[in-house]
This record gives sequence, C-alpha cells and structure tokens, in this order.
Amino acid sequence: MRLASFEVATDVGPARRVGVVEDDGTDGNPRYVDVTAGYGASLAAEGRQSPAALAATEAPTDMQSFLERGGSAMDAARRAREFVAFDADERGPGGARCWYDADEVRLLSPVPRPNTLRDCMAYEEHVKNSLGGEVPDVWYELPVYYKGNPESVVHPGEEVEWPSYTESLDYELELAAVVGREGRDLDAEEASDYIAGYTVFNDFSARDIQGKEMQGRLGPTKGKDFANGFGPYLVTADAVDIASITLTAEVNGETWSEGTPGEMYHTFPELLAYISRHETLYPGDVVGSGTVGRGCGLELGRWLEPGDTVRLGAEEIGKLEHTVVRPE
Amino acid sequence: MRLASFEVATDVGPARRVGVVEDDGTDGNPRYVDVTAGYGASLAAEGRQSPAALAATEAPTDMQSFLERGGSAMDAARRAREFVAFDADERGPGGARCWYDADEVRLLSPVPRPNTLRDCMAYEEHVKNSLGGEVPDVWYELPVYYKGNPESVVHPGEEVEWPSYTESLDYELELAAVVGREGRDLDAEEASDYIAGYTVFNDFSARDIQGKEMQGRLGPTKGKDFANGFGPYLVTADAVDIASITLTAEVNGETWSEGTPGEMYHTFPELLAYISRHETLYPGDVVGSGTVGRGCGLELGRWLEPGDTVRLGAEEIGKLEHTVVRPE
Repeated sequence: MRLASFEVATDVGPARRVGVVEDDGTDGNPRYVDVTAGYGASLAAEGRQSPAALAATEAPTDMQSFLERGGSAMDAARRAREFVAFDADERGPGGARCWYDADEVRLLSPVPRPNTLRDCMAYEEHVKNSLGGEVPDVWYELPVYYKGNPESVVHPGEEVEWPSYTESLDYELELAAVVGREGRDLDAEEASDYIAGYTVFNDFSARDIQGKEMQGRLGPTKGKDFANGFGPYLVTADAVDIASITLTAEVNGETWSEGTPGEMYHTFPELLAYISRHETLYPGDVVGSGTVGRGCGLELGRWLEPGDTVRLGAEEIGKLEHTVVRPE
Repeated sequence: MRLASFEVATDVGPARRVGVVEDDGTDGNPRYVDVTAGYGASLAAEGRQSPAALAATEAPTDMQSFLERGGSAMDAARRAREFVAFDADERGPGGARCWYDADEVRLLSPVPRPNTLRDCMAYEEHVKNSLGGEVPDVWYELPVYYKGNPESVVHPGEEVEWPSYTESLDYELELAAVVGREGRDLDAEEASDYIAGYTVFNDFSARDIQGKEMQGRLGPTKGKDFANGFGPYLVTADAVDIASITLTAEVNGETWSEGTPGEMYHTFPELLAYISRHETLYPGDVVGSGTVGRGCGLELGRWLEPGDTVRLGAEEIGKLEHTVVRPE
C-alpha cells in the first residue's frame, strides 16, 4: 500500500487528508482514496453509529496522528481502499468525498513535518567517494549519522530556493524509513517491526558551506538544513522489498545516479537499533539511509544549475521531483 | 520575570501549567503563580464574560502554545503576577487555583519538548581546550553548531541514566536561548527581539563514543542525545543581562566550572541571525550557547561518577540539578 498526505481546498480553508494511492486515475495520473472518508463510509455501511467520528479517531486525517495509531490505522486504510468503488461523486458520512483525482489535490510530503529527522551514511561507496577515497575504520563499526531540520521540508513538486550563500548546490539520492511505533533499546531483528514504511529523500546540500562548517568539527547544518525533499508517497514496509529496487536520480531527464538500498552496509533495522540505544524512537521519526554510491553531484564532479529539475525515485515507490530556483 | 512549566496532580490525571516564579514561598522555596488561572481571575474581576475560556486562549497552559502567543501571553503572565495576592486558597474562574507552593507541583523543563534543538560552540576557550589547543580558522567566521534531540529532555531534578555504552560521562555548562517569534533571514540587530528568554542547559555528553562517532565525520549524536537538561526556569530576556551573570557548575557541592555568557565570541543574536539564513526559526526553538571555557570535565581532566549530583546555574536565573545514576 502507498499512502499520501494531501491538501484539499475547501470553503473554510485547506484541509489535510491521508490518502491511499491508486495508479488508475485519468490521463495516467494516480487517484487518492480519502482514508478517513472511505473508512467512515465502510463503517456507515455496517450500520455503526457515529461513523464519521469513529473514522476520524481510528484513521486520523493527518499523517502524524495516523502513524501514532499504528497497525489499526493501517488496517482502516486498507478497508477504505477495499470499500471505495471510485463511483462519480462517491461520498462517506457527513458528505465527505471518498476519493480525488490527482489534479484536485495539493500533494504534500507524506510526513509533512517529521517528528525528528536523522540522516545516516550507510553506503560504503558514498563514504569512500565523499571523503577522498578513505573510509574511516569507525564507520564499519558505528552507523554514524547527523540530525536534520524537520522544519525544512519541501513538498513534492515544490520549488527549492537556491540559498544565497552557496555556489555548489547538490542533490543526494536516498531512501528514508518512517518510524511507526515507539521503541527504545531495540535489537536489529525487532527494529524492522518499527518501520511503518519508506519514502524517497532528496537531501539537498550546499557543498561549499558544508565543507567549511565541517572544518569547525560540528554539523553539517547550514549545508543541509535549507531543503529536505520527501515523497511522493509512504510505501508501507510490507509492500516493497527495498533491497531489490533501483533508485535513480535524473537531472532534466538525464540519469545521473543509480543505486539500490540492497547495497547498504548498515541496514535500516541496524540503523534503528543503533539510534534507539538509550534513546526513544517515536512514530513520525524519519531516518535517511545516506546517499547511494555515486548518488550525488559531488561524487560525479557535476553541479546543479538554477532552473534544473531533479527527479529521484524508483518505479515501485514513486518519483519525487523538485526544480531549483535562484531568486533574482 | 521567570517562567516555569509544571505539572499538578489532579483526579483526572496530571495537568500541565505555565507559572510565574516568585521567591517568597515557604522554607526558602519558590512559589508559582498559575498564569492561566491568575490571568482568568483578573479578567473576572474586570467583569469580562467567559474569563476562563479567554485566559486559556490568550495565556495557554502549555509553554509551547504560550510562546506561540508571543508578547500578549507575556503581558497576561505579568497581569496574573500582579493580580494574585497569595491568599490562602485563592482561586480563579471555574475554581482553578491561582498559585502553588513548590512542594505541590512537579517542576518540568520550562520548554518540556523544544520544537527544535541546536547547540553552538561560541566560547573560544572551550573550542581551544576541546580540540587540543587549536581553534580552526573557520570557527571565527562561522558560528558552527549541531542539532540535538528535542525528545531527550531531562526535567529539573530528574535522574540522568548513565548510558551503557560510555565510561566517560560529562556535563557541559551552557546557557540556552528560547525563540519566541517566527523569523527568517534576520540580521543580528533584529534577532535579539526574537529571543523570549534564557534557561540553563546541561548538555550531558558521553565523551568516548562522541570521540569515536566524530571520526566518522558526522554527529555528534549518540555522544549527546541521551540527556538534555534544561531549567529550572525560563528567564525573560528583559529580566536579565546575561553578559553580567556568572554561571557555575558544582559537582556534589564543589565548584568545578565558572564562566559568563559575556565571554561568548559569537553572541546569541549573532547565532540566531546565522541560523536563520535561509531557514525559519519558530517559537519553542532552543539554541544552546555551547560550553563556557573550562565548563566541562573534558577540559578539566575530571569525570563524573555514578551517584554524582551536578548543579548548574547562576543566582539570577536559578540552579538546575541532576543526579547521574548507573543502572545495576
């Protein structure tokens, strides 16, 4: 199952919703089942009282609360998907629409404001290429990471503003895991049960200031924190074998990078286990894999230009697109 | 004005409140004006309708929402302080108590869950002592920082659990600024208007794993993220000249460290201005100064032991105390 966060324009302002993504919309576009409305419709059909209130509680309309509900919210989303027939003007309790065409919504990052954001460096080739050919010994032992700014989310299709302080803007091709359950001191085996799903992550980077600030022995911060692209969807962990997918990065339609999460030296469950040592993981926490080998311009000696469109992803999980724009 | 977050036990479970701290409680302890109740009482005395509802909206009972209300919430807190007479069993609208003795509440970190957490390194002597005598040139140019884990807050007086993965547990003596207003691309002059106030910050650190992980060129993370002590109060920016206070760190009553924010090479407004470049600051964001010179055991060649009590602060702003406990 692929989940989306989206916004619908209403007479009382924009409303956020959680959706199940279906590929069979008009013109090759997806369409979105409204999880809360669709689940409410299924409850109403069963004759349950107060179906709208029950559905809003069990399958909330914002992804953070939805993730906090755990497996029962996921089950509700599946029931919504099964129940909705994509009839014209199909509506649930209270008159809520059960589904939308892609052009009727504003797609958001699946987790519009991560609870926290960590980004690891789990691909050996990327470490080697980024650090001048040398992989520090400690890297094999500890899956090192930094923490990103969860306030700097750039939604799918949104423009990325070129920071005034950089001449070396770069993309990074990554997958991110979204935590679906509270946990602490996990081992790698149980940690996989704490992953709700995966999304594509473009960790936009400003290489000149990143290089400078890291000489100061902290960070990265300003080199990373201006734009985090996530999306387009949250693919549930049961729906994808991430080790078998091929992630690609295209710039203006040309493939620059290619790689697979199957090459991660430290796997996602291992990353979560390490992070959870003496630290609690919460639903809505997002953990990036780090960049796939040759998964950024730095490793290729190529750089983004103002106006470039960067498209990251895989067929199985969707493509995340951003255009970088330099203000006059 | 000094503000506190605290919890009151009630028959329907614990209730969080925002308080104004007064020093004249019983036995030399402080007492706390309940901001929402006290402000509500002042509105009731004026004959306003729905005083409880108005007070809860204008001066919310949780610090994050309170900070989001900005200056008008601060004004409401001042009015509550002026109105409350500390009469026995003094109550506001709906029967809410207007003030509490220290032993009637559970004191929390003033911002119990920071919106984000950044920690800088603004004292030259600490940089010199921590990095083997050398200050990287870039440090004078860029006020480098890393991002901490806002989920790992340890409230005043709470025990800090010794992480199983360290033999070198350390404290760090810091002041932190709390952001009170949304802003972006600020200059240093205007940035001071975005600081709601200050609190003491004990950035507990596990030096052995910190040293290792930073060889991996990211982080710090596991070396820092297990415990962030903040408190005891949020001292409003108008109530303290931070450049003139002396911060001390005592371990089991012995003074180990002493320093003043007057020695910060990069000032708080400069830190906020730097952080806000191409990045938005929000109410509830917390920004640590970094450690004062000789403000941690690493610089002194001294280490914490299980059972030690660490007390950080200054007379003008309060003392923050934690005992470190090693599980069997």
